[in-house]
Amino acid sequence: MNHSYNHSLSANSPLTKKSVNRCFDGEQHYYSHQSTSTKTPMTFSIYLPDEALAGRLCPAILYLSGLTCNADNVTHKAHFQQKCSELGMILIAPDTSPRSSEGHDVPNDERYFVGQGASYYVDATQAPWADNFNMQSYIVDELYDLLRSEFPIHSIGITGHSMGGHGALLLGFKFPSKFVSVSALSPVCAASESAWGEAAYTEYFGKDESLWSQADASKTIEKVGQQYSSILVDQGAADNFLAEGQLQTSKLQQACEKAKQPLTLRYQAGHDHSYYFIQSVINDHIEHHWRMAQLS
Amino acid sequence: MNHSYNHSLSANSPLTKKSVNRCFDGEQHYYSHQSTSTKTPMTFSIYLPDEALAGRLCPAILYLSGLTCNADNVTHKAHFQQKCSELGMILIAPDTSPRSSEGHDVPNDERYFVGQGASYYVDATQAPWADNFNMQSYIVDELYDLLRSEFPIHSIGITGHSMGGHGALLLGFKFPSKFVSVSALSPVCAASESAWGEAAYTEYFGKDESLWSQADASKTIEKVGQQYSSILVDQGAADNFLAEGQLQTSKLQQACEKAKQPLTLRYQAGHDHSYYFIQSVINDHIEHHWRMAQLS
Repeated sequence: MNHSYNHSLSANSPLTKKSVNRCFDGEQHYYSHQSTSTKTPMTFSIYLPDEALAGRLCPAILYLSGLTCNADNVTHKAHFQQKCSELGMILIAPDTSPRSSEGHDVPNDERYFVGQGASYYVDATQAPWADNFNMQSYIVDELYDLLRSEFPIHSIGITGHSMGGHGALLLGFKFPSKFVSVSALSPVCAASESAWGEAAYTEYFGKDESLWSQADASKTIEKVGQQYSSILVDQGAADNFLAEGQLQTSKLQQACEKAKQPLTLRYQAGHDHSYYFIQSVINDHIEHHWRMAQLS
Repeated sequence: MNHSYNHSLSANSPLTKKSVNRCFDGEQHYYSHQSTSTKTPMTFSIYLPDEALAGRLCPAILYLSGLTCNADNVTHKAHFQQKCSELGMILIAPDTSPRSSEGHDVPNDERYFVGQGASYYVDATQAPWADNFNMQSYIVDELYDLLRSEFPIHSIGITGHSMGGHGALLLGFKFPSKFVSVSALSPVCAASESAWGEAAYTEYFGKDESLWSQADASKTIEKVGQQYSSILVDQGAADNFLAEGQLQTSKLQQACEKAKQPLTLRYQAGHDHSYYFIQSVINDHIEHHWRMAQLS
């Protein structure tokens, strides 16, 4: 393994480097920055293969995490680094919401599916959330542009797990000019019609049902029609949240049929909702985004 | 992925199953049991590939973790499950020491390199440690026999990281009839001559220098001579603990030369002491143990 590269931030970069660890043939970095979208500090992790450290343009994947997670969970437990090293891909994991920190008092809720750790990657319109909970703008505009200006990124695909899978499907189909590929792991498929999502959207959007629909992944896909040559979704067949009706995978399947959006949907026998499942299928997702990037 | 197998414990098993998660083509299990060696409850994780779940004898690796860790760190962060699934290997991760719990008051020390989380896998002879800190007996006798009776194990290799790498080298060469293969990641190579180990052995063995030598991996290898056709050791070249003198890799190299024990020693450029390093090389260690098991 060679180690003679060194990625440099731009002269006036808003990013602060928090940590660097060599990992396979690349480096796992963490950065923080002050976000204009959320009015708080935000942290993300980014895996840079040696190709990127040497300044070569690489395809990137934006990974949106699920309820209660931050950037650490996927970075420590999803095991994406080996495949990204092999293929020369960048993977970015942002936080799941703005958070309170010294000098920053951010609203929260006792329920784990509302508030900090549970943004649903939407721009909230209701008090007290609207000031900080602007994660759609953060992901699709602010972080997106920041990544493109600070790292050698060829193209960006989007994926995610659970609530983050919903975010990937939603943002991928709302902003198809920004992303070259979409996939999801155990996604919430119709947030506006699941118990978790109903609680969150009641807080973030109040009673305006048009906002609920605009923030629903399956409804958005049905509305905008085919955008990608194919999308990949993996779902554990023994996932308790599937049985409980939080995920509603069949609604995604119906929406893709109506939209004529090709969908590879795989129910994996015996698998649950955990990072043990994520690590079991993530290599296929990285390869999906890699193949799509070659065509873009 | 098929999922039609189900491993059963023996009728009078002392093990209590704590969790099961499907992971690749196998399952990640956790068990706890009351240990006669440590006089406390002990917890370990075990990855069982489908071959083992179907009752077929599989080669196994015993992974000893480093200072401050328990079974979770390696199970969540080392990324061994994919390769074990591919090759049909079992991997067992015990805790690093007995621990205090409700009804069990176990001695401890404020220093992170002495006491709970820092057993060094030896049998302590000094108060207050000798009652509970019998991790050599726990690993090599009690857990070893328990694993063989409760799981379809063909043969056992031993590996570990840092303090656990020392444990793997020490126990592998003290008890070569029990293990078919040895490897280590970033090992402490000579505990009796490193600052961490000196502090621990002063507590566990007092001033009896013969006990210190018997619990030193490099001295043990030099004394007992070649036991394995080869052993594999990976070390991050940018590991701070190497520079600080805690690891003393050169002592292992010298001991293996004197013992005529073939050693593959790899210094990996840019890599540190973290789980990012462990995951970068662990597949090679799993394959090392798999190859040795084929010959046993």
